[in-house]
Amino acid sequence: MNDNSPSPLPRTPLTLLGTGAMGTALGRAWLAAGHPLTVWNRTPERTAALTAEGAVAAASAAEAVAANRLVVVCLLDDASVGAALEGVELAGRDLVNLTTGTPADARARSAWAEERGARLLDGGIMAVPPMIGAPGAFVLYSGRPEVFEEHRDTLAVPAGTEYAGADPGLAALLDVALLSGMYGMFAGITHAFALLRGTDVAPKDLAALLVPWLNAMAGSAHGTAERLRSGDHTSAVVSNLAMQVAGSGTLLRTAAEQGVSTELLAPFLDLMRRRLADGHGEEDISGLVELLRSR
Amino acid sequence: MNDNSPSPLPRTPLTLLGTGAMGTALGRAWLAAGHPLTVWNRTPERTAALTAEGAVAAASAAEAVAANRLVVVCLLDDASVGAALEGVELAGRDLVNLTTGTPADARARSAWAEERGARLLDGGIMAVPPMIGAPGAFVLYSGRPEVFEEHRDTLAVPAGTEYAGADPGLAALLDVALLSGMYGMFAGITHAFALLRGTDVAPKDLAALLVPWLNAMAGSAHGTAERLRSGDHTSAVVSNLAMQVAGSGTLLRTAAEQGVSTELLAPFLDLMRRRLADGHGEEDISGLVELLRSR
Ligand SMILES: NC(=O)c1ccc[n+]([C@@H]2O[C@H](COP(=O)([O-])OP(=O)(O)OC[C@H]3O[C@@H](n4cnc5c(N)ncnc54)[C@H](OP(=O)(O)O)[C@@H]3O)[C@@H](O)[C@H]2O)c1
Ligand SMILES: NC(=O)c1ccc[n+]([C@@H]2O[C@H](COP(=O)([O-])OP(=O)(O)OC[C@H]3O[C@@H](n4cnc5c(N)ncnc54)[C@H](OP(=O)(O)O)[C@@H]3O)[C@@H](O)[C@H]2O)c1
Repeated sequence: MNDNSPSPLPRTPLTLLGTGAMGTALGRAWLAAGHPLTVWNRTPERTAALTAEGAVAAASAAEAVAANRLVVVCLLDDASVGAALEGVELAGRDLVNLTTGTPADARARSAWAEERGARLLDGGIMAVPPMIGAPGAFVLYSGRPEVFEEHRDTLAVPAGTEYAGADPGLAALLDVALLSGMYGMFAGITHAFALLRGTDVAPKDLAALLVPWLNAMAGSAHGTAERLRSGDHTSAVVSNLAMQVAGSGTLLRTAAEQGVSTELLAPFLDLMRRRLADGHGEEDISGLVELLRSR
Repeated sequence: MNDNSPSPLPRTPLTLLGTGAMGTALGRAWLAAGHPLTVWNRTPERTAALTAEGAVAAASAAEAVAANRLVVVCLLDDASVGAALEGVELAGRDLVNLTTGTPADARARSAWAEERGARLLDGGIMAVPPMIGAPGAFVLYSGRPEVFEEHRDTLAVPAGTEYAGADPGLAALLDVALLSGMYGMFAGITHAFALLRGTDVAPKDLAALLVPWLNAMAGSAHGTAERLRSGDHTSAVVSNLAMQVAGSGTLLRTAAEQGVSTELLAPFLDLMRRRLADGHGEEDISGLVELLRSR
């Protein structure tokens, strides 16, 4: 606003491989923040949205990688990362791989990158494209800590950052853990709405009760964590397994009365019953975690 | 504090049948608020905690019911309500039945009470005993609206009140819907913790990520409600079913890598795949509700 105001800091230039739905959302956030951006996509037409906003399209993945030290990869799956980077010179690059995969994928891809003289940071995006650049979105990172530290400010532009540790598989593991937890909750929500179909209860009236109820009950995960840490599943138990199993008949009979399949509900109730049968009636349901591991 | 201060309003006297864990917590809240309380329990010794705090123990259920117009019932299950009230004169009583049961149980018990000249209000307690009298606890009610209105202030003493409608089965239905939703979420939480067992991630670090994540994602139930209302599962879709099914392989492969059973996760993923196979790839997962009803 006056002549002495400092000029804005130059923004780190970077390369983005993959301009699908997610890549485009990420690229847009970096461009809006003033980062020079080089983009590449297997189907070149799909870079148009970003080049219209100032990105430079490279003719090949190799050319895109050569353009900048920081290379963000956001492709369909791990196999497409291998395909896109086949034969590309990676020495001296910092690869930030935001492509979804398993922990083993992330570890193998990290070793693969190191063999080629690059440093790899793996990331798991906890957001859908419309959330990118808005509060709430975050990316879990793991792998090379120095890559995270060095590029932290740039990485924080599209979404919040959470660094999980040096094992490159950790971000993928936590990403999948959060998504798996979410699908369990979605299964519960699906069953709850199904119970109300064909009744006079408006779906929004159920949602108005269900959302705060789930929010209140999610907090029990902190108690579960403490019991898993201590190994004592009988500590500070409010509703023990024996009581919960006894009450579960009402849930199954209600599903039957309403004509709703129990396929989403029954597996957890079965697990409770098995743990009870093993003699753990005094435990909290945190004890079920022990039973779910097959080795 | 001065001579002209009004004397406190006399509190409605009431009867409580059942002084198990929940009945005792409820009774304590009414006594603390100054309500004269008559109690009965099949095993008489279990009324001691409440009589020590001022409750009057009746020698039989019939005597307890005769003592007050408002009779709260909190027994194990619907069969125990039938057993406790067998042959008891109920004419002119207002029965508030907080015993857990199915919607059909509640409707049949309501008709049974009306035949005997009583009015019935059914309730589903959304709390565990330690939460009674503290903020957050609530009871869903349905059945006779005039009974709810007349006793509303008394009923509000131990827990918040939510009146669901005149059909006596509604409170039980919503109670079971909320509990079923919760068990789905618990299944997801159980799977998430199991994935992390044997790794260096502290359970509390997962909980710190998982709780806010689930809280944020629970809000999607409002969108589900709107799609169920409109019947259009393709409206305002952020992640369509086809994309979610494509991504689900990573969840299953990660479970396999970590040695975690997929028994809690697979049923929802299978349901997604079946809906996709039926040609609904463009839908939100709200469409799964339609598939879950067997009639
Ligand atoms: N969208 C979301 O809600 C979301 C949320 C969290 C994480 N993610 C993750 O973000 C990543 C990208 O997702 P997206 O939504 O952007 O998917 P998308 O819109 O389907 O884009 C997929 C991208 O991968 C490229 N690709 C596929 N196969 C390839 C191959 N063999 N060689 C080179 N490139 C290939 C595509 O190129 P073409 O254009 O040439 O096909 C495109 O750039 C995925 O790992 C996804 O799991 C997405
Ligand atoms: N505890 C919770 O976390 C919770 C949460 C929400 C809802 N509820 C509901 O509240 C109700 C009571 O639960 P609670 O925790 O208080 O259970 P509880 O501690 O096991 O007490 C059960 C009560 O039912 C009585 N009873 C059982 N069978 C009977 C029969 N055949 N005839 C007469 N009385 C009989 C018991 O009498 P005796 O003492 O003689 O055995 C006792 O008073 C249940 O419907 C439960 O689902 C409980």
